Amino acid sequence: MNEIWFSEQLHPYYRKSLRVKQVLVDEQTPFQHLLLLDTEFFGKTLVLDGIIQLTERDNAGYHEMITHIPMLAHGSPRRVLIVGGGDGGSLQQVLKHPSVEEAIVCELDRRVVEVSREHFTAFGDPWADPRARLVVQDAFAFLESGKEKFDVIISDTTDPIGMAERLFSEEFYRLMLQALNPGGAIATQCEQMFFDAALIREIFTFVKGLVEHPAYYHTLIPTYPGGGIGFMYVSNTPWTAGLSRTYPEGLNYMNPKVHQAAFALPEFFRRQLADLLVDQ
Amino acid sequence: MNEIWFSEQLHPYYRKSLRVKQVLVDEQTPFQHLLLLDTEFFGKTLVLDGIIQLTERDNAGYHEMITHIPMLAHGSPRRVLIVGGGDGGSLQQVLKHPSVEEAIVCELDRRVVEVSREHFTAFGDPWADPRARLVVQDAFAFLESGKEKFDVIISDTTDPIGMAERLFSEEFYRLMLQALNPGGAIATQCEQMFFDAALIREIFTFVKGLVEHPAYYHTLIPTYPGGGIGFMYVSNTPWTAGLSRTYPEGLNYMNPKVHQAAFALPEFFRRQLADLLVDQ
Repeated sequence: MNEIWFSEQLHPYYRKSLRVKQVLVDEQTPFQHLLLLDTEFFGKTLVLDGIIQLTERDNAGYHEMITHIPMLAHGSPRRVLIVGGGDGGSLQQVLKHPSVEEAIVCELDRRVVEVSREHFTAFGDPWADPRARLVVQDAFAFLESGKEKFDVIISDTTDPIGMAERLFSEEFYRLMLQALNPGGAIATQCEQMFFDAALIREIFTFVKGLVEHPAYYHTLIPTYPGGGIGFMYVSNTPWTAGLSRTYPEGLNYMNPKVHQAAFALPEFFRRQLADLLVDQ
Repeated sequence: MNEIWFSEQLHPYYRKSLRVKQVLVDEQTPFQHLLLLDTEFFGKTLVLDGIIQLTERDNAGYHEMITHIPMLAHGSPRRVLIVGGGDGGSLQQVLKHPSVEEAIVCELDRRVVEVSREHFTAFGDPWADPRARLVVQDAFAFLESGKEKFDVIISDTTDPIGMAERLFSEEFYRLMLQALNPGGAIATQCEQMFFDAALIREIFTFVKGLVEHPAYYHTLIPTYPGGGIGFMYVSNTPWTAGLSRTYPEGLNYMNPKVHQAAFALPEFFRRQLADLLVDQ
């Protein structure tokens, strides 16, 4: 039997492969290689420069957790910035909060938006929402222009490789904080605790110098390396403020117990961060 | 550059591969194909019939969670049965509880014990502990003989393929419960919530007919399919009884917050079990 498999290797010691039913898009954009695969079990899958970004099956664990944790901690965010996130998954979640008046997606690669809009129809075409605005620009330049302020910023980026490496720097965190209104909260994609502990510790260290209530939390994503990923919560408001808010309807991954559980760190990892931890 | 990779495929749509430094053991035992690999990052890795059983790097999340949850819920277990578990990892954890007087490992394949004892030296040779007893026998036959009773039973088995399929049947759960003292607790390896939801629901359904306080919990294991696995907690004592006990020293994965977090079920999965859930 002929079988097509897509293999991903982000780390030199670990590969993961998904069985492919059909290659729907395979193109070099001006910024990266973009694959849109239809896979067995996981459904449609976006791959950028060889790394799986999301699948229909398991993206809720990513998009709900990167958005609702800071949104709920803030309580009533009106203006939200999504860095990257051209697939629309984070935008869909952000727009579930009735307090939101404007959600800007700052995505470098217009093709990610176009291809995702066509294929990830389960996101309900959040781009059609009058509150959504797409800015096709490098996030660094957008934030350096310093014109706009936000209540919540979500850094929904690829991994720290090539151009995206700058999005994991202290300089970028400072730029995000300069664009944050008082009482605001940030969540960033921040890698996996087993594989990337040194990077996470480095980021946590400088974030602790910038805000009062940093915290690391994590979620389950079978199609990500190691089966999950984590996020850095960056705010002067503790994440626990979110536990008492009203949750959006129609969630598929998050609930109040999962919200709390996400901040429970396995002992080996808690020890590695022990001198830095404030709220967990 | 020449590279050796080991690839595992338990499901028809998902493969995972680890980079191999050296193949240390490769043999057909009377029961299965046994590989002991030295892998990059994950260290020594036991593979049975092509499926990764444990690695040095990430086994704590499995062995601590399958043992301490029922041990702590019981409070002072004196006699413990481990079904399978010939690698010694669960035995090491069980023996950390000072109340334990005897821990029996009922393992079908003596070679698993011998090879693991030689290579997984981080388990501290729990077989040398005078409280440890190895029974080389099929667990079904051992339990059917019905001679011994236990305070805690840990079903630390391979996946439900071939002979091991019986270990996921209602009949086997009934046999374990017949061997359980009043106040006792069982934990079983019970697959992954994204990939095996139908099997988990089936097991939960019959377990609910057998005990008052069944519960499903989960842990992170990057080298397992989907990056994690779950366990069925089977007892007339709620798992929450364990939260107030004294924890063993020297844990690498579990702590009180992780203990509680393990029972938080992602919303899509909680909905699938909603009519069955008692304590979560």
